[in-house]
Amino acid sequence: MEIEVKVPIKDRAAALDRINGLGAVLVNERDQEDLYFAHPVRDFGVTDEALRLRKDGHREVLTYKGPKLDGRSKTREEIEFSVPYSEMKTVLGKLGFRESFKVMKHRAEFVLEGVRVCLDDVDGLGSFVELEFEGQDIEVGLQKIESLKKRLGLEGNETRSYLELLYIKNKR
Amino acid sequence: MEIEVKVPIKDRAAALDRINGLGAVLVNERDQEDLYFAHPVRDFGVTDEALRLRKDGHREVLTYKGPKLDGRSKTREEIEFSVPYSEMKTVLGKLGFRESFKVMKHRAEFVLEGVRVCLDDVDGLGSFVELEFEGQDIEVGLQKIESLKKRLGLEGNETRSYLELLYIKNKR
Repeated sequence: MEIEVKVPIKDRAAALDRINGLGAVLVNERDQEDLYFAHPVRDFGVTDEALRLRKDGHREVLTYKGPKLDGRSKTREEIEFSVPYSEMKTVLGKLGFRESFKVMKHRAEFVLEGVRVCLDDVDGLGSFVELEFEGQDIEVGLQKIESLKKRLGLEGNETRSYLELLYIKNKR
Repeated sequence: MEIEVKVPIKDRAAALDRINGLGAVLVNERDQEDLYFAHPVRDFGVTDEALRLRKDGHREVLTYKGPKLDGRSKTREEIEFSVPYSEMKTVLGKLGFRESFKVMKHRAEFVLEGVRVCLDDVDGLGSFVELEFEGQDIEVGLQKIESLKKRLGLEGNETRSYLELLYIKNKR
Protein backbone atom coordinates (compact mmCIF):
# COMPACT_ATOMS: atom_id res chain seq x y z
CA MET A 1 0.00 0.00 0.00
CA GLU A 2 1.11 3.51 -0.74
CA ILE A 3 -0.57 6.59 0.67
CA GLU A 4 0.41 9.97 -0.70
CA VAL A 5 -0.77 13.40 0.37
CA LYS A 6 0.34 16.63 -1.27
CA VAL A 7 -0.13 20.07 0.26
CA PRO A 8 0.66 23.45 -1.33
CA ILE A 9 2.63 25.75 0.99
CA LYS A 10 3.04 29.48 1.00
CA ASP A 11 5.93 29.89 3.40
CA ARG A 12 8.70 27.54 2.31
CA ALA A 13 11.17 28.66 4.98
CA ALA A 14 8.64 28.06 7.75
CA ALA A 15 7.81 24.60 6.39
CA LEU A 16 11.50 23.68 6.22
CA ASP A 17 11.97 24.91 9.80
CA ARG A 18 9.11 22.72 11.00
CA ILE A 19 10.42 19.68 9.11
CA ASN A 20 13.86 20.13 10.63
CA GLY A 21 12.37 20.98 14.01
CA LEU A 22 10.66 17.58 14.20
CA GLY A 23 14.00 15.87 13.65
CA ALA A 24 13.55 14.81 10.02
CA VAL A 25 16.59 13.32 8.30
CA LEU A 26 17.50 14.73 4.88
CA VAL A 27 17.93 11.69 2.63
CA ASN A 28 18.79 13.49 -0.58
CA GLU A 29 18.25 16.63 -2.56
CA ARG A 30 18.19 16.86 -6.33
CA ASP A 31 16.66 18.43 -9.43
CA GLN A 32 13.97 16.49 -11.21
CA GLU A 33 13.01 17.17 -14.78
CA ASP A 34 9.97 15.58 -16.41
CA LEU A 35 9.63 16.13 -20.12
CA TYR A 36 6.33 15.07 -21.70
CA PHE A 37 6.03 14.43 -25.41
CA ALA A 38 3.22 14.79 -27.92
CA HIS A 39 2.82 12.02 -30.49
CA PRO A 40 3.34 13.03 -34.17
CA VAL A 41 -0.27 12.20 -35.11
CA ARG A 42 -2.04 10.89 -32.02
CA ASP A 43 -3.59 13.11 -29.36
CA PHE A 44 -2.40 11.64 -26.06
CA GLY A 45 -5.04 13.72 -24.29
CA VAL A 46 -7.73 11.83 -26.18
CA THR A 47 -6.10 8.39 -26.03
CA ASP A 48 -5.24 8.89 -22.33
CA GLU A 49 -1.60 7.97 -22.79
CA ALA A 50 1.64 9.67 -21.85
CA LEU A 51 5.27 9.51 -22.90
CA ARG A 52 7.71 10.99 -20.42
CA LEU A 53 11.45 11.40 -20.14
CA ARG A 54 12.57 11.88 -16.55
CA LYS A 55 15.85 13.09 -15.18
CA ASP A 56 15.97 12.42 -11.46
CA GLY A 57 19.39 13.35 -10.20
CA HIS A 58 21.63 10.94 -12.13
CA ARG A 59 18.79 8.57 -13.01
CA GLU A 60 17.37 8.94 -16.53
CA VAL A 61 14.28 7.00 -17.55
CA LEU A 62 11.68 6.80 -20.29
CA THR A 63 8.12 6.04 -19.20
CA TYR A 64 5.15 5.09 -21.32
CA LYS A 65 1.77 5.23 -19.58
CA GLY A 66 -1.14 3.49 -21.22
CA PRO A 67 -4.80 4.48 -20.87
CA LYS A 68 -6.63 3.76 -17.60
CA LEU A 69 -7.66 0.11 -17.65
CA ASP A 70 -11.06 0.67 -16.06
CA GLY A 71 -13.22 3.58 -14.96
CA ARG A 72 -13.11 2.97 -11.23
CA SER A 73 -9.45 2.58 -10.42
CA LYS A 74 -6.53 4.58 -11.70
CA THR A 75 -4.70 1.46 -12.88
CA ARG A 76 -2.63 1.97 -16.02
CA GLU A 77 -0.07 -0.01 -17.87
CA GLU A 78 3.28 1.57 -17.21
CA ILE A 79 6.52 0.66 -18.95
CA GLU A 80 9.65 2.31 -17.63
CA PHE A 81 13.34 1.79 -18.28
CA SER A 82 16.68 3.55 -18.24
CA VAL A 83 17.75 5.55 -21.28
CA PRO A 84 20.31 8.28 -21.83
CA TYR A 85 18.10 11.41 -21.52
CA SER A 86 19.77 13.59 -24.12
CA GLU A 87 20.06 10.91 -26.84
CA MET A 88 16.51 9.64 -26.31
CA LYS A 89 15.20 13.20 -26.49
CA THR A 90 17.03 13.77 -29.77
CA VAL A 91 15.72 10.55 -31.31
CA LEU A 92 12.13 11.32 -30.23
CA GLY A 93 12.51 14.73 -31.87
CA LYS A 94 13.80 13.15 -35.08
CA LEU A 95 10.79 10.81 -35.09
CA GLY A 96 8.36 13.73 -34.94
CA PHE A 97 7.51 13.73 -31.24
CA ARG A 98 7.16 17.28 -29.93
CA GLU A 99 7.99 18.39 -26.40
CA SER A 100 4.62 19.29 -24.90
CA PHE A 101 5.29 19.93 -21.22
CA LYS A 102 8.21 20.24 -18.91
CA VAL A 103 7.83 19.88 -15.16
CA MET A 104 10.93 21.03 -13.34
CA LYS A 105 11.31 20.84 -9.64
CA HIS A 106 13.84 20.81 -6.88
CA ARG A 107 13.13 18.05 -4.39
CA ALA A 108 14.48 17.78 -0.86
CA GLU A 109 13.64 14.34 0.49
CA PHE A 110 13.43 13.62 4.22
CA VAL A 111 12.45 10.67 6.37
CA LEU A 112 10.43 11.43 9.47
CA GLU A 113 8.87 8.77 11.70
CA GLY A 114 8.74 6.28 8.84
CA VAL A 115 7.12 8.77 6.47
CA ARG A 116 8.83 10.09 3.35
CA VAL A 117 8.54 13.88 3.38
CA CYS A 118 9.37 15.74 0.16
CA LEU A 119 9.72 19.49 -0.03
CA ASP A 120 9.18 20.30 -3.70
CA ASP A 121 9.86 23.63 -5.38
CA VAL A 122 8.08 23.38 -8.71
CA ASP A 123 8.92 25.86 -11.47
CA GLY A 124 5.83 27.94 -12.19
CA LEU A 125 3.73 26.42 -9.39
CA GLY A 126 5.47 27.18 -6.10
CA SER A 127 6.28 24.92 -3.20
CA PHE A 128 4.58 21.76 -1.95
CA VAL A 129 5.08 19.21 0.78
CA GLU A 130 4.41 15.62 -0.15
CA LEU A 131 3.93 13.02 2.57
CA GLU A 132 4.20 9.40 1.53
CA PHE A 133 3.73 6.25 3.54
CA GLU A 134 4.45 2.76 2.30
CA GLY A 135 3.33 -0.20 4.35
CA GLN A 136 0.81 -2.95 4.93
CA ASP A 137 -1.54 -1.11 7.25
CA ILE A 138 -3.42 1.68 5.51
CA GLU A 139 -5.02 2.91 8.78
CA VAL A 140 -1.65 3.25 10.51
CA GLY A 141 -0.37 5.12 7.46
CA LEU A 142 -3.28 7.53 7.31
CA GLN A 143 -2.99 8.29 11.03
CA LYS A 144 0.75 8.86 10.78
CA ILE A 145 0.32 11.19 7.83
CA GLU A 146 -2.56 13.15 9.42
CA SER A 147 -0.61 13.53 12.65
CA LEU A 148 2.49 14.73 10.82
CA LYS A 149 0.46 17.09 8.65
CA LYS A 150 -0.91 18.77 11.78
CA ARG A 151 2.44 19.04 13.52
CA LEU A 152 3.99 20.49 10.36
CA GLY A 153 1.23 23.11 10.27
CA LEU A 154 0.07 21.97 6.84
CA GLU A 155 -3.44 22.54 5.56
CA GLY A 156 -5.21 21.45 2.38
CA ASN A 157 -4.81 18.60 -0.04
CA GLU A 158 -3.88 18.80 -3.71
CA THR A 159 -4.93 15.66 -5.57
CA ARG A 160 -3.92 16.80 -9.05
CA SER A 161 -0.48 16.07 -10.47
CA TYR A 162 2.04 18.85 -11.12
CA LEU A 163 1.53 18.21 -14.84
CA GLU A 164 -2.21 18.77 -14.51
CA LEU A 165 -1.70 21.92 -12.43
CA LEU A 166 0.76 23.34 -14.96
CA TYR A 167 -1.53 22.43 -17.83
CA ILE A 168 -4.48 24.22 -16.19
CA LYS A 169 -2.32 27.23 -15.38
CA ASN A 170 -1.04 27.54 -18.95
CA LYS A 171 -4.51 27.15 -20.42
CA ARG A 172 -5.78 30.24 -18.61
CA MET B 1 40.00 3.87 -41.79
CA GLU B 2 37.80 0.82 -42.03
CA ILE B 3 37.74 -1.53 -44.99
CA GLU B 4 35.03 -4.14 -45.18
CA VAL B 5 34.50 -6.84 -47.77
CA LYS B 6 31.61 -9.28 -47.74
CA VAL B 7 31.48 -12.49 -49.77
CA PRO B 8 28.57 -14.92 -50.11
CA ILE B 9 29.64 -18.55 -49.62
CA LYS B 10 28.01 -21.78 -50.71
CA ASP B 11 29.97 -24.27 -48.67
CA ARG B 12 29.96 -23.13 -45.05
CA ALA B 13 31.86 -26.16 -43.73
CA ALA B 14 34.63 -25.68 -46.27
CA ALA B 15 34.91 -21.98 -45.42
CA LEU B 16 35.13 -22.75 -41.72
CA ASP B 17 37.82 -25.37 -42.40
CA ARG B 18 39.89 -22.83 -44.34
CA ILE B 19 39.48 -20.18 -41.65
CA ASN B 20 40.61 -22.61 -38.97
CA GLY B 21 43.32 -24.03 -41.25
CA LEU B 22 44.98 -20.62 -41.51
CA GLY B 23 45.18 -20.44 -37.71
CA ALA B 24 42.36 -17.94 -37.07
CA VAL B 25 41.42 -17.34 -33.44
CA LEU B 26 37.71 -17.52 -32.56
CA VAL B 27 37.00 -14.34 -30.60
CA ASN B 28 33.32 -14.88 -29.95
CA GLU B 29 30.18 -16.45 -31.33
CA ARG B 30 26.68 -15.09 -30.82
CA ASP B 31 23.23 -14.50 -32.27
CA GLN B 32 22.50 -11.04 -33.63
CA GLU B 33 18.98 -9.79 -34.14
CA ASP B 34 18.21 -6.57 -35.97
CA LEU B 35 14.64 -5.41 -35.83
CA TYR B 36 13.70 -2.52 -38.11
CA PHE B 37 10.62 -0.40 -37.47
CA ALA B 38 8.23 1.48 -39.72
CA HIS B 39 7.09 4.93 -38.53
CA PRO B 40 3.34 5.34 -37.81
CA VAL B 41 2.87 7.93 -40.57
CA ARG B 42 6.23 8.55 -42.21
CA ASP B 43 7.71 6.35 -44.94
CA PHE B 44 11.31 5.75 -43.87
CA GLY B 45 12.05 4.48 -47.38
CA VAL B 46 11.16 7.91 -48.75
CA THR B 47 12.76 9.96 -45.96
CA ASP B 48 15.88 7.73 -46.04
CA GLU B 49 15.82 7.11 -42.29
CA ALA B 50 15.91 3.94 -40.21
CA LEU B 51 15.00 2.94 -36.69
CA ARG B 52 16.59 -0.29 -35.50
CA LEU B 53 16.63 -2.34 -32.33
CA ARG B 54 19.65 -4.61 -32.14
CA LYS B 55 20.35 -7.54 -29.91
CA ASP B 56 23.98 -8.49 -30.17
CA GLY B 57 24.71 -11.22 -27.67
CA HIS B 58 23.98 -9.46 -24.38
CA ARG B 59 24.20 -5.96 -25.86
CA GLU B 60 20.89 -4.28 -26.65
CA VAL B 61 20.82 -0.98 -28.52
CA LEU B 62 18.45 1.38 -30.29
CA THR B 63 19.78 3.09 -33.40
CA TYR B 64 18.32 5.99 -35.35
CA LYS B 65 19.86 6.63 -38.74
CA GLY B 66 19.17 9.95 -40.40
CA PRO B 67 19.09 10.56 -44.16
CA LYS B 68 22.36 10.66 -46.12
CA LEU B 69 23.89 14.08 -45.61
CA ASP B 70 25.14 14.47 -49.18
CA GLY B 71 24.89 12.59 -52.45
CA ARG B 72 28.51 11.59 -52.77
CA SER B 73 29.39 10.02 -49.45
CA LYS B 74 27.35 7.63 -47.37
CA THR B 75 27.59 9.86 -44.30
CA ARG B 76 24.52 9.78 -42.07
CA GLU B 77 23.67 11.03 -38.66
CA GLU B 78 23.58 8.03 -36.37
CA ILE B 79 22.34 8.07 -32.78
CA GLU B 80 22.80 4.87 -30.84
CA PHE B 81 22.40 3.94 -27.20
CA SER B 82 21.65 1.06 -24.86
CA VAL B 83 18.04 0.17 -24.14
CA PRO B 84 16.35 -2.93 -22.81
CA TYR B 85 15.31 -4.66 -26.06
CA SER B 86 12.00 -6.12 -24.95
CA GLU B 87 10.69 -2.99 -23.17
CA MET B 88 11.75 -0.64 -25.98
CA LYS B 89 10.08 -2.92 -28.53
CA THR B 90 6.85 -2.89 -26.52
CA VAL B 91 6.86 0.91 -26.16
CA LEU B 92 7.52 1.40 -29.89
CA GLY B 93 4.59 -0.90 -30.61
CA LYS B 94 2.36 1.10 -28.25
CA LEU B 95 3.38 4.29 -30.05
CA GLY B 96 2.30 2.91 -33.43
CA PHE B 97 5.65 1.81 -34.85
CA ARG B 98 5.30 -1.45 -36.77
CA GLU B 99 8.01 -4.08 -37.08
CA SER B 100 9.01 -3.95 -40.73
CA PHE B 101 12.05 -6.20 -41.04
CA LYS B 102 13.99 -8.61 -38.93
CA VAL B 103 17.53 -9.63 -39.81
CA MET B 104 18.65 -12.61 -37.78
CA LYS B 105 22.08 -14.08 -38.01
CA HIS B 106 24.55 -16.22 -36.19
CA ARG B 107 27.99 -14.67 -36.20
CA ALA B 108 31.26 -16.42 -35.47
CA GLU B 109 33.99 -13.81 -35.14
CA PHE B 110 37.67 -14.61 -35.70
CA VAL B 111 40.89 -12.66 -35.82
CA LEU B 112 43.38 -13.65 -38.47
CA GLU B 113 46.56 -11.69 -39.24
CA GLY B 114 45.07 -8.50 -37.88
CA VAL B 115 41.88 -8.88 -39.90
CA ARG B 116 38.47 -9.45 -38.32
CA VAL B 117 36.85 -12.41 -40.06
CA CYS B 118 33.14 -12.99 -39.48
CA LEU B 119 31.34 -16.12 -40.59
CA ASP B 120 27.68 -15.07 -40.76
CA ASP B 121 24.72 -17.40 -41.15
CA VAL B 122 21.85 -15.11 -42.09
CA ASP B 123 18.29 -16.41 -41.81
CA GLY B 124 16.79 -16.49 -45.29
CA LEU B 125 20.00 -15.44 -47.07
CA GLY B 126 22.59 -18.12 -46.38
CA SER B 127 26.19 -17.77 -45.28
CA PHE B 128 28.69 -14.99 -45.80
CA VAL B 129 32.25 -14.22 -44.81
CA GLU B 130 33.00 -10.64 -43.87
CA LEU B 131 36.57 -9.41 -43.75
CA GLU B 132 37.22 -6.18 -41.93
CA PHE B 133 40.41 -4.24 -41.48
CA GLU B 134 40.78 -1.21 -39.26
CA GLY B 135 43.93 0.86 -39.48
CA GLN B 136 45.69 3.93 -40.77
CA ASP B 137 47.02 2.53 -44.02
CA ILE B 138 44.24 1.77 -46.48
CA GLU B 139 46.68 0.16 -49.00
CA VAL B 140 48.02 -2.26 -46.40
CA GLY B 141 44.46 -3.10 -45.41
CA LEU B 142 43.30 -3.75 -48.96
CA GLN B 143 46.32 -5.97 -49.65
CA LYS B 144 45.79 -7.95 -46.45
CA ILE B 145 42.13 -8.47 -47.23
CA GLU B 146 42.75 -9.45 -50.86
CA SER B 147 45.46 -11.88 -49.82
CA LEU B 148 43.25 -13.46 -47.16
CA LYS B 149 40.32 -13.62 -49.55
CA LYS B 150 42.41 -15.65 -51.98
CA ARG B 151 43.83 -17.98 -49.36
CA LEU B 152 40.34 -18.57 -47.97
CA GLY B 153 39.16 -19.49 -51.48
CA LEU B 154 36.58 -16.69 -51.47
CA GLU B 155 35.23 -15.15 -54.65
CA GLY B 156 32.85 -12.27 -55.28
CA ASN B 157 31.90 -9.14 -53.37
CA GLU B 158 28.51 -8.26 -51.96
CA THR B 159 28.19 -4.52 -51.37
CA ARG B 160 24.53 -4.49 -50.29
CA SER B 161 23.54 -4.82 -46.64
CA TYR B 162 21.71 -7.89 -45.33
CA LEU B 163 18.64 -5.68 -44.90
CA GLU B 164 18.75 -4.66 -48.57
CA LEU B 165 19.25 -8.26 -49.69
CA LEU B 166 16.31 -9.47 -47.58
CA TYR B 167 14.15 -6.61 -48.81
CA ILE B 168 14.90 -7.45 -52.46
CA LYS B 169 14.32 -11.16 -51.82
CA ASN B 170 10.94 -10.53 -50.16
CA LYS B 171 9.83 -8.15 -52.89
CA ARG B 172 10.15 -10.80 -55.57
